[in-house]
Amino acid sequence: MAVEFIYSHWAIMECLRAGRRKLDQLLLTDSVEEKGLVAEILSTANDRGVPVKRVPRRIIDDIAQGANHQNMVLRASSYPYVDLETVLDVSKKRNEKPFILLLDLLKDPQNVGALMRVADAVGIHGVIMQERRGVAVTPAVVNASSGAIEHLNVVQVVNLSQTMKELKENDVWMIGLDIGPNVPTIDKTDLNMSLGLVLGSEGEGMRRLVRDTCDLVLCLPMRGNVASLNVATAGSVALYSAWRARGWEGWAHA
Amino acid sequence: MAVEFIYSHWAIMECLRAGRRKLDQLLLTDSVEEKGLVAEILSTANDRGVPVKRVPRRIIDDIAQGANHQNMVLRASSYPYVDLETVLDVSKKRNEKPFILLLDLLKDPQNVGALMRVADAVGIHGVIMQERRGVAVTPAVVNASSGAIEHLNVVQVVNLSQTMKELKENDVWMIGLDIGPNVPTIDKTDLNMSLGLVLGSEGEGMRRLVRDTCDLVLCLPMRGNVASLNVATAGSVALYSAWRARGWEGWAHA
Repeated sequence: MAVEFIYSHWAIMECLRAGRRKLDQLLLTDSVEEKGLVAEILSTANDRGVPVKRVPRRIIDDIAQGANHQNMVLRASSYPYVDLETVLDVSKKRNEKPFILLLDLLKDPQNVGALMRVADAVGIHGVIMQERRGVAVTPAVVNASSGAIEHLNVVQVVNLSQTMKELKENDVWMIGLDIGPNVPTIDKTDLNMSLGLVLGSEGEGMRRLVRDTCDLVLCLPMRGNVASLNVATAGSVALYSAWRARGWEGWAHA
Repeated sequence: MAVEFIYSHWAIMECLRAGRRKLDQLLLTDSVEEKGLVAEILSTANDRGVPVKRVPRRIIDDIAQGANHQNMVLRASSYPYVDLETVLDVSKKRNEKPFILLLDLLKDPQNVGALMRVADAVGIHGVIMQERRGVAVTPAVVNASSGAIEHLNVVQVVNLSQTMKELKENDVWMIGLDIGPNVPTIDKTDLNMSLGLVLGSEGEGMRRLVRDTCDLVLCLPMRGNVASLNVATAGSVALYSAWRARGWEGWAHA
């Protein structure tokens, strides 16, 4: 099996909780104390039957290659991607109109991780990522997502615009997010629809073909001196706009 | 004069453009090429009468203390804080209801920087930050804001809840952002009002007295497995919700 080392407290905790990967072993530095969140992680590892081993810190430093590992790494099988059908099944099972996020070649694990936290918070049914030149679900992304991505359904595709067409054939609207000025604002369309929200890469935005495959392109207005927003910020605002349009569907306290 | 060293391209560019600090000198590594954004920065420095000096890279490395300086630092006077009156004057001059952001002891420069980019994008009239235990406007914050904070009116106060009371006396509503469940959602109140949006610190939220001084506390719903959002993400969504309620006021393309 392809092996990955998940690091940092919340990434490991959510990986254990989600229970979707094969889990080999949890390695801890020999000095870390078993209290608070660390104790919770150890207890969860125990419930899951994952062996725990104490090792010298330098071993974990080596494995994490300079990342902020917080004194532990979890040896696990690679990220469990799903297929598009699984995502559409989630919509059907929840009896909700599809609510999908598509990432066109995002490169920064921090941005992808931040978006995954929001995708989890708003109940996204699935995330589609372009394979190869874009980011994959690495331990850095799992860490940046605070482990949220362990609970999400992520599809890797070789041709994003092809997948967009497939989704359109399934009556899912493809809405691209862009910046103005010749684009309607995000509140001009009722986002309570079968929705695929498409985000372009840092700096460059959506590729031409991806943009052209969108049914509609909407923008977030900006009025300031520095006319740019981080894609994670813009995407977060758009995801919340869409969920709000759905009446906070699926929220226990709604 | 108290001296700071602003680093990274956009931070330096916006500092030059905003023209609010006294600017001593722009230091460049001797190897950096004068093209693209670097050429634009040099041209702007020239327009502003700021001397430019080439130095060995290790000098800039030393000054930036390990930060990602992108081969240049700008020697400048300290950040030009303003007072509360100036912020209220901005509202009057723009003929807009006050739109103010209040930060209660945020600690992470990345979070504060990200929020400043959004504050600039939505046209916030002023930002109030608690002095001392919270973050100040350091070069790290300027960098994280991509320079946006150079254009914003920031007030440092010693007692945030006291300032909230002053704003309330000026008919500005204090709306705190929190997480659920026993709190109304952000769309339940028409945010097209004289508004001070209050954000609590990472992990701990608003301090008790700050929360109690709010006129109203609203929440962003969350339905996922990982029930937490970064304060910069939550604040960004809330700022955009408020600006949307104002009909994207001040946006050239509205």
